[in-house]
Amino acid sequence: MQTDGRRPRLTPAIADVRRAVREGLAEIAGRGSASTGRADARADLLVALSGGPDSLALAAATAFEAPRAGLRAGAVIVDHALQEGSADVAARAARQAEELGLDPVIVTRVEVEATGGPEAAARGARYAAIDEALAATGAAAVLLGHTLDDQAETVLLGLGRGSGAVSLRGMAAVAEQPGGTRIRPLLGIRRQQTHDFCRDAGLEPWHDPHNDSAAYTRVRVRHEALPLLERELGPGVAEALARTAEQLREDDDTLHAMAIETIEDLVEHAEAGIAISAPALEANPAALRNRIIRYVVDSEFGVSLSRAQTLAVAALVTDWHGQKGVDLPGIRVVRRGALLEFARA
Amino acid sequence: MQTDGRRPRLTPAIADVRRAVREGLAEIAGRGSASTGRADARADLLVALSGGPDSLALAAATAFEAPRAGLRAGAVIVDHALQEGSADVAARAARQAEELGLDPVIVTRVEVEATGGPEAAARGARYAAIDEALAATGAAAVLLGHTLDDQAETVLLGLGRGSGAVSLRGMAAVAEQPGGTRIRPLLGIRRQQTHDFCRDAGLEPWHDPHNDSAAYTRVRVRHEALPLLERELGPGVAEALARTAEQLREDDDTLHAMAIETIEDLVEHAEAGIAISAPALEANPAALRNRIIRYVVDSEFGVSLSRAQTLAVAALVTDWHGQKGVDLPGIRVVRRGALLEFARA
Repeated sequence: MQTDGRRPRLTPAIADVRRAVREGLAEIAGRGSASTGRADARADLLVALSGGPDSLALAAATAFEAPRAGLRAGAVIVDHALQEGSADVAARAARQAEELGLDPVIVTRVEVEATGGPEAAARGARYAAIDEALAATGAAAVLLGHTLDDQAETVLLGLGRGSGAVSLRGMAAVAEQPGGTRIRPLLGIRRQQTHDFCRDAGLEPWHDPHNDSAAYTRVRVRHEALPLLERELGPGVAEALARTAEQLREDDDTLHAMAIETIEDLVEHAEAGIAISAPALEANPAALRNRIIRYVVDSEFGVSLSRAQTLAVAALVTDWHGQKGVDLPGIRVVRRGALLEFARA
Repeated sequence: MQTDGRRPRLTPAIADVRRAVREGLAEIAGRGSASTGRADARADLLVALSGGPDSLALAAATAFEAPRAGLRAGAVIVDHALQEGSADVAARAARQAEELGLDPVIVTRVEVEATGGPEAAARGARYAAIDEALAATGAAAVLLGHTLDDQAETVLLGLGRGSGAVSLRGMAAVAEQPGGTRIRPLLGIRRQQTHDFCRDAGLEPWHDPHNDSAAYTRVRVRHEALPLLERELGPGVAEALARTAEQLREDDDTLHAMAIETIEDLVEHAEAGIAISAPALEANPAALRNRIIRYVVDSEFGVSLSRAQTLAVAALVTDWHGQKGVDLPGIRVVRRGALLEFARA
């Protein structure tokens, strides 16, 4: 560990980021050590490092906190190969990770598919590479450097795509995924604090030119939309958006779990599809009724209903006056007596 | 009714607004006719009319639809006396209401108190005057002209004030209030449609200069924030915000009702305040646990907790490691065995 030789002064930014990481590590401490992988390549957790200020601060704070929590922390650096010189950026980040004392340090180069937009494609390739690194090191969790500002941007972007708690719930602080647990310790930390951390710790982050490219909706949200909202609504909008995500995630998780519990008693599998008891659906509050309808259609037919479509199906129960039925993409819903019947059209 | 003599062509805007009003009137149809008030001053419902495009379109559509639903519709015009010539504006709106066939037409002049900001003060005075008019006419409901755009603005303004479903739930389409039912039939109608309605129906709305005054946060949200979000996130942001309000209101109503139901079994009244069973609180999902804490503190002590304060209290249950307690404004919360005790500090 070279960090001890040039131990940084404990500034507010360093203290805040370290505390956040400490709380994040509590999510994996005690889950047991890595049990698979080669002995020299084992880790309990990996930090996903781009070399940017957010993930570099996360890496440095993790290198400091993980040993104190009895955890071995490595790093995974994903080279998306989307920009000229990306291999150099990855190699530089790897050197920084090693200097911080993270071990093992894995650099992995991915090919990004062009489908689904550049941001979505890069994200898909990144998580696949991270999952591979988790498997290779036996690590149970990856730490991701998303900050409060990223969360606020995600909520606003969600508004552009849809509505309600499902669109606005943002990113989870802790998400159990098939490939391992994803932990985002910095969701309560402002992006500026990670910049301050790097400055205070004498770390030189890489500045991704994509972060200034107005071609990306997220970048425009960052540089135009959020500052304007702060100006017009008063300061604290980013924090309010992040708190909103946290609360809506709680609400949505709770209501979703209740809807799932209810479904077992409500749904019958029929020959051509499924049927739901109309009186039982009616007896549920709208928040559960509409979630049940969306969930059943999604899990049975793989179709994600819009709000308007969901309400049209619900009206067969809440405003029943002998309608002919509702046509959804590839699905026909009719009411027959006390049953709402869903079948492929 | 003079409308039959110059019946407007049924344009899309007129059809949409009338349909929305028809659905709104269904909320009061069948609740029985007005039973109090002088015979010549009785109404089943009143339209709140400012003379602006939104409420003028609402008034005209209501004058058309109410008789067809067997309802007698009047109008109430509130003169806030905040602007030079406001009495003339009110008198002009009254004439328009009479020409549309609304009866009775009540003009009421109010004094706006200067506390709590000009918008909040004007709103308080307006609703008090409306409630008086409801009482005077025996009307069970008032129709308000808030549009989808108003709803979207309300959601964004809510973000500036707080977070989560409570701040973002916007305005209710139907709200039972002590003074009568408030119905907002136009929450699914764009503001532009009300302008089009007025143009198509040959109605000349009044344009409130306050609607262009950048001194009001709402006006800046309307003219700056929403257009920028539409530009950066793509079209449909106003609709997404309005749908969000509707869904979060559903979610919040459901979770709030569940929290209230749970409270009866959880809370004990103690000598110095109240106590909640910690294990029972812990067994509830976060969305209910946090609502229970907020509700109990609000109803017992009249204190509205922030998210951070709520989570600090919850940590006495979810992250119990012998904390000394939590100090809230005027309240001390301590854990004693299996109880969370709340008492005035």
